[in-house]
Amino acid sequence: MIGVDALRDAIVPPPAAAMLAAQRHLDALTKPPGSLGRLEELAARLVALCGSPPAIARPVIFTFAADHGVVADGVSAYPASVTAQMVENFLRGGAAVNALARACGARVVVADFGVANPIGSAPDAPTPLVRCPLGAGTANMAYGPAMSRAQAAAGIEHGARLALDAIDAGADLVATGDMGIGNTTAASAITAALTGLDADTVTGHGTGVDDTGRVRKVDVVRRALTVNRPDPRDGIDVLAKVGGFEIAGLVGVILAGAARRVPVALDGFIAGAAALVAAAVAPASVHAMFASHRSAEPGHTRALARLGLVPYLDLGLRLGEGTGAALFIPLARAAARVYREMATFKSAGVDGPA
Amino acid sequence: MIGVDALRDAIVPPPAAAMLAAQRHLDALTKPPGSLGRLEELAARLVALCGSPPAIARPVIFTFAADHGVVADGVSAYPASVTAQMVENFLRGGAAVNALARACGARVVVADFGVANPIGSAPDAPTPLVRCPLGAGTANMAYGPAMSRAQAAAGIEHGARLALDAIDAGADLVATGDMGIGNTTAASAITAALTGLDADTVTGHGTGVDDTGRVRKVDVVRRALTVNRPDPRDGIDVLAKVGGFEIAGLVGVILAGAARRVPVALDGFIAGAAALVAAAVAPASVHAMFASHRSAEPGHTRALARLGLVPYLDLGLRLGEGTGAALFIPLARAAARVYREMATFKSAGVDGPA
Repeated sequence: MIGVDALRDAIVPPPAAAMLAAQRHLDALTKPPGSLGRLEELAARLVALCGSPPAIARPVIFTFAADHGVVADGVSAYPASVTAQMVENFLRGGAAVNALARACGARVVVADFGVANPIGSAPDAPTPLVRCPLGAGTANMAYGPAMSRAQAAAGIEHGARLALDAIDAGADLVATGDMGIGNTTAASAITAALTGLDADTVTGHGTGVDDTGRVRKVDVVRRALTVNRPDPRDGIDVLAKVGGFEIAGLVGVILAGAARRVPVALDGFIAGAAALVAAAVAPASVHAMFASHRSAEPGHTRALARLGLVPYLDLGLRLGEGTGAALFIPLARAAARVYREMATFKSAGVDGPA
Repeated sequence: MIGVDALRDAIVPPPAAAMLAAQRHLDALTKPPGSLGRLEELAARLVALCGSPPAIARPVIFTFAADHGVVADGVSAYPASVTAQMVENFLRGGAAVNALARACGARVVVADFGVANPIGSAPDAPTPLVRCPLGAGTANMAYGPAMSRAQAAAGIEHGARLALDAIDAGADLVATGDMGIGNTTAASAITAALTGLDADTVTGHGTGVDDTGRVRKVDVVRRALTVNRPDPRDGIDVLAKVGGFEIAGLVGVILAGAARRVPVALDGFIAGAAALVAAAVAPASVHAMFASHRSAEPGHTRALARLGLVPYLDLGLRLGEGTGAALFIPLARAAARVYREMATFKSAGVDGPA
């Protein structure tokens, strides 16, 4: 098991000159400078991180699942039973992330980081279940810490181990995905704790609570922050007190990608909260993060702004699972191909500006 | 050769109930209703148009090239020689649209609709050149009509013929692309004529003129509209007087896709101008149009608003060629797969809202 300290020590920013060198190459290609807009920035960031344009031939989406004790306080439109049922759906390949992963040629790793209900075995399931349970769901953060610091560290290490194994097996992009009834409440609490913004600003309707439900979520987030007093200078303290088991695992995926200089495609709001924790642990990990899309959750925009990331897609998604990251993968692949395959003005004999 | 009237007569809206039926199916899938945001709207539109979710296994991008007499008035940062040089680059596979088409598995059809300079033969080029020249570039619209009405109709018919042939050969999505130094000036003039907006509102920096160059473009567009008085109730009149040969061809692609109920992925600003002409000729053609992305050109946003289309990507592209449409293709494919492959709450045994 690789420890959090070892991951942190392995994460350094790419060489300062790498982005400029990549942009110089892009400017020599047969197109007006900058005319491919954000696709050029995406290509330059990928090349600066990886040293050359990645093929993104073997992307892996990590869809981690866990339950949340805070659901007892009525923060979700869906019952907690849905977490286990959706994990079974992932294993059978019937969920949105499965369809979207097939569309972009990604593998989905489904892991139980602490689902409360039993997950039915599916012997003929195309995807095996990885078991890294940290407990039968977190404790209710409205009354005390969601988990212990040791559990938070173990979750990070489990997630990192899964990502490192995938990278060792050839994964050239890792993406975050999540399933956990109640986890937008945990993400709101993490985002409030690590940005200093008010709970009301960073709490949305999740998978579909009404306005009364949202007010209840805001109140629960406020209580969780008051009761637990998470330390914003200590990412793991925030994660333990107001986070979730699957979020801990995703922090590990992000840190592992950053340590190995493999691009990390962040999905939506839950990923944004995990990214805030990862950046608190290892600020240079931000260089490996790619914000796939802007979620409909208001806290996501605030989390990305704090990280200095601008999302590439804006489609009003609010599902999680890794669906937004799956939609981003073809875009990343396209950016890398433009960088690698286009002719230059010189090689193609095309005139420059008059 | 299929005539414009026959195309118009073949274009009817999809059945009114088709969108609702598609949305009902999407609402039964294992996700909170609407949680896939605009991907659901995209899926519903594709299904309503095609009758079932298209595989998008054989998309074809039509990259049509032509020159513009208005370049003599200094509206472009690049010399007209670049049009022919870039066509050669397309044929060799070295341009942005080639790299992006390879990334999404699309075929590129490169056609000369009226390039002024000779296009060098490339016997070993992976892509053959289709020749449908309507002339050696248009006349300068600042002093008279860019082309005759007969040329405009012939251009539409050539473009439609290419698209119909591709559809007969199995194309299940057609996309527009363009190359023509000076063609953002023609697109601005078409957009002003068909939306009634002022030239200043719909004229941008194109491939990179400075602010002085943009003022010159606005002045040229105003003169072209004053001299030619295009009739906004007559799309072909507008196309002939202030359009371009490649734009005529793209109008044909759009009308052909609409006539056959094959989705048409519109690229950027030039495509938006062609779409305005197509909608003036056959209003129901809008049902087949998918606005791939929002171009950096201000006129594009106005054109799409007039068409009632909202773009799916917003990446600041301003290159043309079909690059934005190529980036949209994986998104359309993903939307269709979600529709076709996801389990329902019932089939997966997942609980609904508590």
